[in-house]
Amino acid sequence: MRLSRYFLPVLKETPGEAQVVSHQLMLRAGMIRQTAAGIYAWLPLGLRVLRKIEQIVREEQDNAGAVELLMPTIQSAELWKQSGRYDAYGPEMLRITDRHDREMLFSPTAEELFTTIFANGVKSYRDLPRILYQIQWKFRDEIRPRFGVMRGREFLMKDAYSFDPDLAAARHSYNRMFIAYLRTFARMGLHAIPMRADTGPIGGDLSHEFIVLAPTGESDVFYHSNWKAARDTTVDADDATALQTYVDRLNTDYAATDEKRDQGLEAEAGDALKQSRGIEVGQIFYFGTKYSAAMGLSVQGADGTAIVPHMGSYGIGVSRLMGAIVEASHDKDGIVWPDAVAPYKVALINLRADDASCLAAADAMYDRLTAAGVEVLYDDRDERGGAKFATADLIGVPWQVVIGPKGVGARTVEVKRRGAGTRDEMTVEAAVAKLA
Amino acid sequence: MRLSRYFLPVLKETPGEAQVVSHQLMLRAGMIRQTAAGIYAWLPLGLRVLRKIEQIVREEQDNAGAVELLMPTIQSAELWKQSGRYDAYGPEMLRITDRHDREMLFSPTAEELFTTIFANGVKSYRDLPRILYQIQWKFRDEIRPRFGVMRGREFLMKDAYSFDPDLAAARHSYNRMFIAYLRTFARMGLHAIPMRADTGPIGGDLSHEFIVLAPTGESDVFYHSNWKAARDTTVDADDATALQTYVDRLNTDYAATDEKRDQGLEAEAGDALKQSRGIEVGQIFYFGTKYSAAMGLSVQGADGTAIVPHMGSYGIGVSRLMGAIVEASHDKDGIVWPDAVAPYKVALINLRADDASCLAAADAMYDRLTAAGVEVLYDDRDERGGAKFATADLIGVPWQVVIGPKGVGARTVEVKRRGAGTRDEMTVEAAVAKLA
Repeated sequence: MRLSRYFLPVLKETPGEAQVVSHQLMLRAGMIRQTAAGIYAWLPLGLRVLRKIEQIVREEQDNAGAVELLMPTIQSAELWKQSGRYDAYGPEMLRITDRHDREMLFSPTAEELFTTIFANGVKSYRDLPRILYQIQWKFRDEIRPRFGVMRGREFLMKDAYSFDPDLAAARHSYNRMFIAYLRTFARMGLHAIPMRADTGPIGGDLSHEFIVLAPTGESDVFYHSNWKAARDTTVDADDATALQTYVDRLNTDYAATDEKRDQGLEAEAGDALKQSRGIEVGQIFYFGTKYSAAMGLSVQGADGTAIVPHMGSYGIGVSRLMGAIVEASHDKDGIVWPDAVAPYKVALINLRADDASCLAAADAMYDRLTAAGVEVLYDDRDERGGAKFATADLIGVPWQVVIGPKGVGARTVEVKRRGAGTRDEMTVEAAVAKLA
Repeated sequence: MRLSRYFLPVLKETPGEAQVVSHQLMLRAGMIRQTAAGIYAWLPLGLRVLRKIEQIVREEQDNAGAVELLMPTIQSAELWKQSGRYDAYGPEMLRITDRHDREMLFSPTAEELFTTIFANGVKSYRDLPRILYQIQWKFRDEIRPRFGVMRGREFLMKDAYSFDPDLAAARHSYNRMFIAYLRTFARMGLHAIPMRADTGPIGGDLSHEFIVLAPTGESDVFYHSNWKAARDTTVDADDATALQTYVDRLNTDYAATDEKRDQGLEAEAGDALKQSRGIEVGQIFYFGTKYSAAMGLSVQGADGTAIVPHMGSYGIGVSRLMGAIVEASHDKDGIVWPDAVAPYKVALINLRADDASCLAAADAMYDRLTAAGVEVLYDDRDERGGAKFATADLIGVPWQVVIGPKGVGARTVEVKRRGAGTRDEMTVEAAVAKLA
């Protein structure tokens, strides 16, 4: 993409509305704009990162055997009355009356609808187990939205729902999502710690929150120092026993949110007990037959008797993750995107847009990299080199390729790694080979 | 994907709620379910087709130089009051009051928000021209939603907005979208005719609707018989003059919606004048400075004077397209998907799930096709062959590969083309080569 044809409204000043660094940098880098309290437009650069995060989440859900579908954002209040949550949910639910005076709402989560759709589509135990998921916009009418996309009102969430014949099978589905979540966050360059967590309005008796440690996190968390290291996620998720053993072993190291602290276990951890602030990026729940019973989901067992499936639900805050990644990966000059979620791989900078040989060399480099399948943002604007460097550092693309009058005769370019700050002079061919 | 692990709730009976064939078939094929009046859940098979249609739309927008971003679904009423449309829009706008009693709405289109975001991000004539677009869910509170996803309330729309320094440049942007639309629909196997159209609530003085002819269409359309043939779309869209000549030449053949009929031109067409019903799949508008003036969009010209950009907007009904494609492409047994939008390329049918050699052969075929990058839906269920054939025909996957006891010894399979109904016996290797 040529910057001269793009829409990248970077800001020189830090907007006063932004309190945390991720919000500041995403505004400055022209990734998002607030359009109403807690509601954001995703500008082209921000949308590219959002799609990459979404795609990693999708791939790991698919790898876990989950099947994707898509629910509408606007739902009928009827289903929520059936489960009893319409009254219980409170003012965070955005309630809507349509032109025929029917009560509707903007979905904040979708246990009721998934359970109903599944109930209408299945008949027998052979239709179990299943995990269904969607990646869809949700709305929660937070009283004080803040921290940019980390606590917005309209947000993109992956929500999955598992349906199993009994508790043992449901436990396996829970563990499948547990390991899928560790893999998902690791692929984005995030170290997320699974912590014993309160089940909140979804209910149930087993839950973990996945927490990224960050001083700007909104909640206090407590964990054994062993959790500071990333965990190996090599385990056969199809083998229920091996997976349970793996999950149990991980959970021998204490980790809990503020609501689920355990004094005895904390005493055991002793000096290894650490306290931090944390950002929740996902949460998983097992809640038994709470929604299947309420919504009338039942299938016929092998012996002809009715089975009421055991269920769990599994959320990942897809848009929130972008804020968490920026909190975890930035420096004084701007964002430092992990490769897997970077909006582009290469920022190509022509230092002298007014010099014919530099222009020809930059155009040729753009064509070669693009032909090699590399995602390039080409700063072809008629601007000073300093402004181009500042923009490239701010938007945090992993590699910068700089073309200037010094190297153009010798057919060399400078290749800079954004995070480490290392710079190497190399031939055009070597640069293409390195980046392709 | 193995059908034994999928969620494909096909229906044997045609649901009474569905009046048109596309709605009937999409329900029967387990692609959609209605969750409230005019609101649909997209089941796994339907979502796959939706994503393929969306991706074709995206690629042709990108090819036209448009830049993708994403607006929130919930917008503040303030912007709509500024343009005067908050009162003008009427009861089709879904109006919402949030917990702080602020007036909000579910976006039915986004001229105001795009213009405002663009205005805040640009400064000079060098920031023009631009075409920005999004593919996002919209809501229009239709008084009588009907025809399934063709006239639903919550629907997926591509909406693009062009910003140009003057009328001539705006005309070029309009023409870029004109040719992009012809290419988009052709790639989906649809023949869409651009027709002179009323500008409706968006306003402006130039508009075309792109209409697919179908007896179940909701409006009357009139066109010269020359439009029955598909048009060559070879033209250099970057060359404004060549593109204008191309568009002008196309438009010498009369085509108009009911609201824009011209008696003189119809008399000229004589016996070549045809009348039909039509489904609108896209509409493009040029409306000058209507929204840029209302929303305060202005940039500095080369000579320092202010330029108020000329604008157009360009919609495609992404979810509606699925209905239009099914209307245009089905037979008595079910849907016949055009290759470009088919949910899977191959339906792999094992006729004898209880036979070890058939099972091994089918599993091996599934692995080989999948390894070759072919999208396969493998019917590995313990069902009769007849039921499997009926499902495969109903869901309309372009190719069927059948494995049964007759061929398994000779390592042959039957390959059926769904649309033509042709069947060929061939070796496993030949089938893989044909389909990969």
